[in-house]
Amino acid sequence: MKVAFTSDNIAGASDAVFHAMMEAAQGDAMPYGHDEGTEQVTHMLSELFECDLAVFLVSTGTAANVLSISALTPPWGSVLCHSESHLLNDESTAPEFYAGGARFVGVRGADAKIDPVQLKKVINQKVGDVHSCQASAVSVSQVTEVGSVYSLPELRAITDVAKAAGLPVHMDGARFTNALVALDCSPAEMTWKAGVDVVSFGATKNGVMAAEAIVVFKHSLESKGIDSERVVQELGFRRKRGGHLHSKMRLLSAQMVAYLTDDLWLNNANHANTMMSMLQDGLKDIPDVMIDTPAQANMLFCRMPLAMIDFLQKEGFGFYTGRWEEGVIRLVTSFRTPKEGVDAFINATRRFSAISD
Amino acid sequence: MKVAFTSDNIAGASDAVFHAMMEAAQGDAMPYGHDEGTEQVTHMLSELFECDLAVFLVSTGTAANVLSISALTPPWGSVLCHSESHLLNDESTAPEFYAGGARFVGVRGADAKIDPVQLKKVINQKVGDVHSCQASAVSVSQVTEVGSVYSLPELRAITDVAKAAGLPVHMDGARFTNALVALDCSPAEMTWKAGVDVVSFGATKNGVMAAEAIVVFKHSLESKGIDSERVVQELGFRRKRGGHLHSKMRLLSAQMVAYLTDDLWLNNANHANTMMSMLQDGLKDIPDVMIDTPAQANMLFCRMPLAMIDFLQKEGFGFYTGRWEEGVIRLVTSFRTPKEGVDAFINATRRFSAISD
Amino acid sequence: MKVAFTSDNIAGASDAVFHAMMEAAQGDAMPYGHDEGTEQVTHMLSELFECDLAVFLVSTGTAANVLSISALTPPWGSVLCHSESHLLNDESTAPEFYAGGARFVGVRGADAKIDPVQLKKVINQKVGDVHSCQASAVSVSQVTEVGSVYSLPELRAITDVAKAAGLPVHMDGARFTNALVALDCSPAEMTWKAGVDVVSFGATKNGVMAAEAIVVFKHSLESKGIDSERVVQELGFRRKRGGHLHSKMRLLSAQMVAYLTDDLWLNNANHANTMMSMLQDGLKDIPDVMIDTPAQANMLFCRMPLAMIDFLQKEGFGFYTGRWEEGVIRLVTSFRTPKEGVDAFINATRRFSAISD
Amino acid sequence: MKVAFTSDNIAGASDAVFHAMMEAAQGDAMPYGHDEGTEQVTHMLSELFECDLAVFLVSTGTAANVLSISALTPPWGSVLCHSESHLLNDESTAPEFYAGGARFVGVRGADAKIDPVQLKKVINQKVGDVHSCQASAVSVSQVTEVGSVYSLPELRAITDVAKAAGLPVHMDGARFTNALVALDCSPAEMTWKAGVDVVSFGATKNGVMAAEAIVVFKHSLESKGIDSERVVQELGFRRKRGGHLHSKMRLLSAQMVAYLTDDLWLNNANHANTMMSMLQDGLKDIPDVMIDTPAQANMLFCRMPLAMIDFLQKEGFGFYTGRWEEGVIRLVTSFRTPKEGVDAFINATRRFSAISD
Repeated sequence: MKVAFTSDNIAGASDAVFHAMMEAAQGDAMPYGHDEGTEQVTHMLSELFECDLAVFLVSTGTAANVLSISALTPPWGSVLCHSESHLLNDESTAPEFYAGGARFVGVRGADAKIDPVQLKKVINQKVGDVHSCQASAVSVSQVTEVGSVYSLPELRAITDVAKAAGLPVHMDGARFTNALVALDCSPAEMTWKAGVDVVSFGATKNGVMAAEAIVVFKHSLESKGIDSERVVQELGFRRKRGGHLHSKMRLLSAQMVAYLTDDLWLNNANHANTMMSMLQDGLKDIPDVMIDTPAQANMLFCRMPLAMIDFLQKEGFGFYTGRWEEGVIRLVTSFRTPKEGVDAFINATRRFSAISD
Repeated sequence: MKVAFTSDNIAGASDAVFHAMMEAAQGDAMPYGHDEGTEQVTHMLSELFECDLAVFLVSTGTAANVLSISALTPPWGSVLCHSESHLLNDESTAPEFYAGGARFVGVRGADAKIDPVQLKKVINQKVGDVHSCQASAVSVSQVTEVGSVYSLPELRAITDVAKAAGLPVHMDGARFTNALVALDCSPAEMTWKAGVDVVSFGATKNGVMAAEAIVVFKHSLESKGIDSERVVQELGFRRKRGGHLHSKMRLLSAQMVAYLTDDLWLNNANHANTMMSMLQDGLKDIPDVMIDTPAQANMLFCRMPLAMIDFLQKEGFGFYTGRWEEGVIRLVTSFRTPKEGVDAFINATRRFSAISD
Repeated sequence: MKVAFTSDNIAGASDAVFHAMMEAAQGDAMPYGHDEGTEQVTHMLSELFECDLAVFLVSTGTAANVLSISALTPPWGSVLCHSESHLLNDESTAPEFYAGGARFVGVRGADAKIDPVQLKKVINQKVGDVHSCQASAVSVSQVTEVGSVYSLPELRAITDVAKAAGLPVHMDGARFTNALVALDCSPAEMTWKAGVDVVSFGATKNGVMAAEAIVVFKHSLESKGIDSERVVQELGFRRKRGGHLHSKMRLLSAQMVAYLTDDLWLNNANHANTMMSMLQDGLKDIPDVMIDTPAQANMLFCRMPLAMIDFLQKEGFGFYTGRWEEGVIRLVTSFRTPKEGVDAFINATRRFSAISD
Repeated sequence: MKVAFTSDNIAGASDAVFHAMMEAAQGDAMPYGHDEGTEQVTHMLSELFECDLAVFLVSTGTAANVLSISALTPPWGSVLCHSESHLLNDESTAPEFYAGGARFVGVRGADAKIDPVQLKKVINQKVGDVHSCQASAVSVSQVTEVGSVYSLPELRAITDVAKAAGLPVHMDGARFTNALVALDCSPAEMTWKAGVDVVSFGATKNGVMAAEAIVVFKHSLESKGIDSERVVQELGFRRKRGGHLHSKMRLLSAQMVAYLTDDLWLNNANHANTMMSMLQDGLKDIPDVMIDTPAQANMLFCRMPLAMIDFLQKEGFGFYTGRWEEGVIRLVTSFRTPKEGVDAFINATRRFSAISD
C-alpha cells in the first residue's frame, strides 16, 4: 500500500465536519458572526482555555497569524520569530503587508526554537532610537517548522524575556493540538499560563475544511499593560479589511464546533502523532537513515541517500525533498494516515537499505 | 409563515455543495490549487465564458474584489466606482489596503449605475499630474447595490469610456448570476464582450458555502495594452500575501464545480429573481408602499410608513431598515426564499395598509 | 512692469533665512534635532502658541499634513476634509500612503469650508460597523483652497462637532500666517483655543526655503481622551520612516528661527495680504471680472472672458487657468509681490475691459 | 584642539552652497522642478556619468534610498542588501513602508560587503513559489557601513549575479564621492559600467545642506529587460506621494549645482579621505588600538581599551561608541575636519597608551 507523507494539508477533512456544516446551513442565520454557532465557539474555547477570551475565526492559517500580529505591533516595530518560522519562510510578505510594513526579524536557536538569550539581545538593541525598528512582539511556532515541540519551561524562558520588555507573545498554533498531545498538558498550560497572549489555534491541518481561530487572552495582555480591548476591537476591523470576515460565518463556526466535539481534535492529533511515532521508531534504526530533529508531534525531518529517496518516490510514496540540503526529506503524518502506509514506508526503506549495503 | 428578506447571505448553502465537498475530501490531494478539481474549475469557467482565462478562487467577496483591483492599479492611481458601490460602502478600507493606498473615487449616476459622462470627466482630470491621483481602473457592480442591473448597452457605454483611456474594467459580480438571469444573456456577453476585463464571479450569495472566483479575461486586457501575464502572475502572489490561498483548495473548487453543475447556479438565481419579481408585483400596488428602484434581480429598495415597518418586524419578517433615509427598507430574496414567505409578506403589508387607511 | 501671481511658491525666500542657515552651519552640531537651534524652535513656538506643545520639523507641506494625520487615524478610519482640500486634490495619494490605507472623505460646504451639518452627518454614519470606515479625524485648511478664511466661530462650529464625537482636529496651515493676519487674532485663538489639536504650521510659502512645523497641542488632545504622548512618540517614528528626519536638522531650525524673529513671518504675510487686498479692490469694479470667493488672505479666484485671459498672459502676467471651469483664474500674492506689479495687472485688466466693451 | 569625529553629518555645509541658494532664490521660478536650475542638474549629472539618465532630487538620504528601491521591487519581493547596511539598520522601517511591505533580507559578507556566493544562494531560493518572497532587487552601499569600499571587480561580482537573475541593482551612495576618490575612477566606472542601475547620489554628508539625487541609468535598466520609462514615471509619482517633492525645488538644485561646480564635491571628499588616512596612519601603530576594517574612505572602526575611550571622551573628542561590541569606536572625518584635530586625537591616544603601559 502506498501513502503520502507530503503534508497534513493533503488530507481532506473529517466527515463529521461536513455533516456539521450541512446541518448548520439549514434555515437562516444572521451573517458575519452574529449567529448562535459563532457564540458557541467562543463559549467552547473559553471552557477549553479556562479563561475569558475573544475569538476571531478565519479560513487560513496565514490569515490567523498575520492578523494576530498586526494588532500587536506598530508599523515601525520588529516582530521577533525564529529564522526558520513559517512567518518568515512560507507566507510570502503577508506579515509585512498586514503589519503595515513592520519588520520581521529572524532569531536563531536549535531545533527551530528561539534561543531566549539571542532573543533578549535583539530586544535590547537601540530601544527608543527612531532610526531602528523597535522590538514590538514575539511569535513562537508550536509545533515548530522542523517538528520539534517547545516544552513548557522552554516556552516560559521565551515569554519571560518578552514580558520583561513588555512585549506581547503570539503563538502560531497551526499544529496546536499535535503539540498539546505531545506535551500532554492543558491548552491553558501551553498558552496563557506559559505567557502566551494570542494564539492562532489551527484546525485545518488537523481535520477540518478551512477554519482557524485567533484566540486573544485578555488578562494575559492586560498583565503586560497592553489594552486588550483595543486589540480585540482592532482585530474586528482588521479581519474585515483583510477580506477575512466570512458572511456565512456559521459555516466556519460549525467546523470548529464539530472539531471540538467528542474529542475529534484530540483524536485526530493523537492519531497523527502516533503514526509519526511509529514511523520514527521504524526509521531510526535503519542504516543510512539519519533523524535530523527527533519528531515530537507529526513531522519529521531526516536524511537519506539520494538513491533511497529516488527508490521511495518510485515506489509511490509522497514527501517533500529538494527544498533543503541535499538528502533531506520531510515526512508528515495526518489524522488520516493509515498504519499500513507507515508500515509500508518503513519496510520499503528497510528493504532498500538492506539491498544497497 | 414568517421569512427573512435580510440578505442573500443569511441562507445557508445548497446540499449539493456539501456533498461535493465531502466527496472531494476523501483521499489525498496536493494543496494550494495543485489538484484536479481546481483545474476543472478553470476548464468549466473557460467553457462558460467562451474564452481563455485565468481563475483565482477565494472565500469572500471582499477578497475577490480587492485582490482583482489591486492588480489593476498602481498605489497613486484612483479607482472609479459608483458612490453607492459595495467597494466604497461595505468593505471597510480593504480597497485601500490591498491597492497599496490607491484612492477609490465615487462617481455618481442614477440607480447606483455609473454615469458615463461623469466618468469621462473624472478620468480626464489632471492626467499625468504627479500632484493628483491618476485614474487607473473602473469597477462596476452587476447587480448594483440598489438592485438595478446594467443593460448591455449601459455596460458598453462605461467600458467604452474606460477603453478610450486605456483603463481596465472590473466587475463586482457578487450577484453575477442574478444579473445574468435578469438580462437573459450569456456570461461572455455580460463580461468581456461588453468590455469587462476582470470579474469577481460570486457564488457565495447564490448557494455555495464560501467561494468566489476572480476571473481574468486575458485577451480583453491585452486589447488595452495591459500585460495580462503580469496581472495573472501578480494575482498569484497577491492572493497568497493576502492570506487568501487556501491549502485545501480542492474544497473551494468542489463548491464551484457543484455550483456550475446541473445548472445549480442558474436555478438558484432564477428562483431568487422569481421570488423578487412576485414580491415586487405584490407590493407595487399597495398604497403607502413606494418602490425606489425597480428590482431587476433579487433585491428591492422601497419606502413605507414607519408604522408599517414596525408592524412587519413585529410580525416576524426580517429585513434591514434604519441604514438609509427614514422609511427605506431593503428586501432581498435568495435561492431558498419560500413562495409562501413572499405571499405572507405581501399579505401582511396589504393588511396593514388596509387597516391604516 | 510684469509680475507672476502663479503661486506663493514661485517666490524664493527671504535673505534673512539664508543668512541664518549659513551662520548655523558654522561649527559642529549633533544631527537629527539634537541641537540647540531645534530646541529653540520648540521654545519659540511654545511662547507663540502660549502652551505646552511638541514640534516636528519637516521640509514639505505635504509631509507635514500627512504625517500629522497618520498619527491621528487607524488604517480603517476615515479622515474628513473638504472636497476641495489640498489633501484630496494636490497631494497624490500621500494621505492614504501615510495613513496606512485609511480613507479620505470629502465633505462639502461653501467657499471650500466644511459645512458642520454635513460633517456631523458623515461622522454619525455606521459607527462601530466593521464594514464601514470609521470617522477618525477632521482636517481643516486655513487659508482654504479658494482663498477664504474660517472665522473663529466657523472653526469652533466644526471642532465642536469633532469634539462631541471624540475626534481629533488637524489644521493644514500651509498659509497659516496669512489667515492669522486676516483674522487679526493670536495663534492660540486660531488653533487650540478654537479646538484644533495638531497644526501644520507652514513657513515655506511665506518666505522660508523649505520648513514646516508639525505642532502638537498636547492638552488639546488629552481633553478628548487621546493619549498625546502616544501621538508625539508616533510622530518621531513616523517622521523617520517617512524619510523626513533631516540629519542637518539645525538648518531647518535656523529657517524657522529666522522666520519667527523680528516679525518676519508677520511682515511677510502682511505684505502678501495687503497686495491681494489692493489687487482685489482694483479688480472688483472692472466690468467682465467676477470675483468668485472674496479673498481674505493672499489668494483670489475670479472669472473673466477668455480673451481677457489671453491678453493678460500675452502681456506677460503669470497665473494658473485652465484647471477649473472655463474662465476661472487664480491669483496669488506673496511676501515679495511688488506693488507696481499689482498696479500693472489692474491697469492691464482695466485697459482690456475698456477696449473690448 | 578638540574635534568631533562623530559623523559627517555634524559638519554644517560649505558656504558656497548657501550663496548659490541665496542667488537662486532671487526672482520667481516655477515650482516643483519646472525651473532652469533643475534642468541644469540633470545636464551636469549626465555629463558627469557620461550617459542618458533621469534625476530626482530629494532632501534626505533615506528618502533617496527607499524611493529608489520602491520603484524596483513588487510588494512580494525581497530586496537583498548587507546585514549591516544602513537600509537594514538605520532607516527604521522606511524600506518596508516605501516598498509596500516588501522584505529586506540581509546577506552576509566580510567588511560589510555582500558575498556574491551567498547572494546567489539567496536569489535562487524558491523562485516562482508564491509562498516565498521573491528576490527582486539588490542594494549595495558604497562606502559601506564599516568604512570599506567595494573595488570595481567586487562590485562587478555582485552585479553579475544580479544580472544573471535579471535583478536591478541599487547603490546607496550616501558617501559616493568618498568612495570615488578612494577608487580613483570615474563616476561611470563605479556605477553603470559596473552594473549599477540606480544610485542614491549623496551630497548632504559631503558639504551641502540637504540634497540627494536619485540617478536612474536608463540603458542599464533596459539591458536587463526592465522598462526604464516605467521606473522613471513611477519615481515621479512616488516622490510626490512620499511628500518629497519640494515646491521650491530650485533651492535643492542650487545646492547640487554648487556641489558639482569648481570640484567642490571632489575637494570636499578628498579632504575628508585625506584626514582619515592621516588619522588611520597615526593610530595603527599605537599599542592597544586595533583597526577593525582598514578605512578606505572617511570612516574607521577600531577597538581600544575602555579606559582609553573614557580618556579621549573626557579630553573632549567626539565619536560614537557603545553601539557595537565593547571597546569599538567609530571615527568619521568630514570636508571640514581640521588637520590639527586629527593630530590632537592621535597625540592624545598615543599619550594615553604610553602612560597606561
